[in-house]
Amino acid sequence: MRTLRMFNSISLDGYFTDADGDYMWAHEGSTDPDLMEFIKGNAQGVNALIFGRLTYELMAAWWPTAEAAKAMPDVARGMNAAPKYVFSRSLDSAEWSNTTLLSEDPATAIARLKQTPGPDMTVLGSGTIVSQLAEARLIDEVQLLLCPVVLGSGKSHFAEVTGKPWWRLSRCLTFKNGRVFFAYHRAD
Amino acid sequence: MRTLRMFNSISLDGYFTDADGDYMWAHEGSTDPDLMEFIKGNAQGVNALIFGRLTYELMAAWWPTAEAAKAMPDVARGMNAAPKYVFSRSLDSAEWSNTTLLSEDPATAIARLKQTPGPDMTVLGSGTIVSQLAEARLIDEVQLLLCPVVLGSGKSHFAEVTGKPWWRLSRCLTFKNGRVFFAYHRAD
Repeated sequence: MRTLRMFNSISLDGYFTDADGDYMWAHEGSTDPDLMEFIKGNAQGVNALIFGRLTYELMAAWWPTAEAAKAMPDVARGMNAAPKYVFSRSLDSAEWSNTTLLSEDPATAIARLKQTPGPDMTVLGSGTIVSQLAEARLIDEVQLLLCPVVLGSGKSHFAEVTGKPWWRLSRCLTFKNGRVFFAYHRAD
Repeated sequence: MRTLRMFNSISLDGYFTDADGDYMWAHEGSTDPDLMEFIKGNAQGVNALIFGRLTYELMAAWWPTAEAAKAMPDVARGMNAAPKYVFSRSLDSAEWSNTTLLSEDPATAIARLKQTPGPDMTVLGSGTIVSQLAEARLIDEVQLLLCPVVLGSGKSHFAEVTGKPWWRLSRCLTFKNGRVFFAYHRAD
């Protein structure tokens, strides 16, 4: 079965955006060479990418550009080439290369995709989708990059997840800029 | 000047209790010998302890007992001997040994105590107090023990802290039972 993981930055108080949806803090002081090398290596295992509409629109506006190709050529090539799925009921089409637009319920669609042959899948950003997939127990691996800033309020990936699921810590790496990367696998 | 630190367990989604105030998840599977040894060593640096009423009442009902002296003799001795401050407007008196009851605003009282001679101070639990002291920029070190459980909703130590303060990661240790200990110092 295809596995599903999620990757995102979170604040010291556990939020992926502040209460106004701002996530620019995640990029502040993030140009640590070791961290950038790690992110690049980590992304190479990524095959299919899953997005909610908001994250999709941000990514689709950046990775196909000449600026992105210049700034991060390997990552840009990988992002543009990867098969991508975007969940949206408001988009009419998805123009970014190799993107499939899905208007059905994310948990139903991902449960079906996991049963089909194909590459493993990663949800990038897309907190609302993550929460739905976590509640449906479809996420096999949680990857978080903890950023040492306190937001005070914000949005959580796991909002309204019930049943208090436990996870098994599989990796923990620290970086000179104070970021900590964690990977957790399902404990059940 | 006396320094102030805080120590508490948090869930994978950043809460110190669930929405109903339950924190028993923090003790589940916590009997890792390395972790217990670390907690004991870490607590030996503790001199004065600061509590809100809820945490005080829980601790005062346990540490003076014969059961606590039997279960964790060194920690019980340390907890009972330490100078303690409890913030409450509803308590009439504080019976636990070496405890001073304070009814004033926590930020005002701690700012004053930090200027007086005496041992360094640690807030244990007491999320509401932590939030007020964090907002007043009185906390010098944040110590968190990250527990790999998703609560879905709950209470944050940093609720309503404004200004998005950054912290500097000073320690990160992992334990076999999946807990991760972090220490952060003020970055400003």
